[in-house]
Amino acid sequence: MQQYFVNGKAENPVTITDKDTVKHMFNVMRLTEGDEVILVFEDGIKRLARVLDPAQKSLEILEKLDENTELPVDVTIAAGFPKGDKLDFLAQKATELGASHIWAFPADWSVVKWDLKKLGKKTDKLAKIIRGAAEQSKRNVIPELKLFEQKAAFLKELVSFDQIFIAYEESAKAGENTVLARRLAEINPGEKLLFIFGPEGGISPEEAAAFEQAGGMKVGLGPRIMRAETAPLYALASVSYALELNAAKGTS
Amino acid sequence: MQQYFVNGKAENPVTITDKDTVKHMFNVMRLTEGDEVILVFEDGIKRLARVLDPAQKSLEILEKLDENTELPVDVTIAAGFPKGDKLDFLAQKATELGASHIWAFPADWSVVKWDLKKLGKKTDKLAKIIRGAAEQSKRNVIPELKLFEQKAAFLKELVSFDQIFIAYEESAKAGENTVLARRLAEINPGEKLLFIFGPEGGISPEEAAAFEQAGGMKVGLGPRIMRAETAPLYALASVSYALELNAAKGTS
Repeated sequence: MQQYFVNGKAENPVTITDKDTVKHMFNVMRLTEGDEVILVFEDGIKRLARVLDPAQKSLEILEKLDENTELPVDVTIAAGFPKGDKLDFLAQKATELGASHIWAFPADWSVVKWDLKKLGKKTDKLAKIIRGAAEQSKRNVIPELKLFEQKAAFLKELVSFDQIFIAYEESAKAGENTVLARRLAEINPGEKLLFIFGPEGGISPEEAAAFEQAGGMKVGLGPRIMRAETAPLYALASVSYALELNAAKGTS
Repeated sequence: MQQYFVNGKAENPVTITDKDTVKHMFNVMRLTEGDEVILVFEDGIKRLARVLDPAQKSLEILEKLDENTELPVDVTIAAGFPKGDKLDFLAQKATELGASHIWAFPADWSVVKWDLKKLGKKTDKLAKIIRGAAEQSKRNVIPELKLFEQKAAFLKELVSFDQIFIAYEESAKAGENTVLARRLAEINPGEKLLFIFGPEGGISPEEAAAFEQAGGMKVGLGPRIMRAETAPLYALASVSYALELNAAKGTS
């Protein structure tokens, strides 16, 4: 069933005001009176709803649904600004794979330089991609998007995480292959995890030192060299596999 | 260091004849006498080599390198033909993530219909993408590419696998979350694994039954609904995490 995010608190009946959502509901999907959809307000609870009046864009809430597709931990992906539209791709896929926060920052080896105007445009485009991907993948929340203009502002955020993993290519090359699995085995539900990735050129040694200073651990993500936009997908799939599949295996 | 695949058996000295490789070596990278690269012949062994004569496209092999980036198991990704250029994307990412074979077949719910001419063009394009991705990600082998014209030919191949996993969306929706992890915990090095994915619409119930008949197990890949081109990346990352990272954690 089609799912839509609705801004604000749950109300019944509800009138849809977001233009893109109205367009998708009534022009693309051509919903009519009695059609059912799932609405997710900002409380992250899925609710079954039925169209009351397509002209008024109004729906009646029928019941709460007990369906949660969120990872048991809060995962932030932070990527050095990559070239081209790779961040679009990364935002879509990271949303499908369960990230709670999708961040990007100007890394030492980022080739692109994005000023405030460019960052504003990027933010608008990425927000739409993330919202659409969150609806399609049946998420309970829309991942938070944050593009940092200055790296210093990103660095200030590091204190708020329980675990910081630095995807450092040199660690992978040196054969590091135990830190991530060891840490994930000890993680508690609800913990805040941050994975930091470089742009195409990787994380600079100075950045790696700064992230370590803030409590980060360098981790290898297997022996193959992944592109900047692929490594975050590996990390998210690993978190899901470790905490949603492998953990379930032991208890059922 | 730049890595190139070279057709045929290892010889010393070696003359590069593949046009794309010649172009990349001597026009793009502008290699000159004495420059070093890594060459990988069809035996999958990496060898350090030094340019002897750029005009002759000749290189001298210096030594074998003890570097293996292949997964400990042989993983085949088989996808129902997806729309547009999603197979390009999938081929590139599956190569980075360690797949040994990248297959696609006309699934019941594939929207696209590819005739032999189209399949020929697709094969040429995908082969280049896969080769490039294998060089960039430092693989020891170039994944095999196979596009099946008929589903029947694909079905005949199923007998050759040790484990067949069916990424069936209905299983994920029903909360199936233990089969993959249980199986991966019992896997032996060198086993042949097949993961089957549907196109955008998913695997049809008839296909799921045929794959089960051939020994396939339906598996859920976490509670979120992934796009057709994203689910294979989750599967490959899970295999790597389970067999390369989580397994290493216990033994070191």
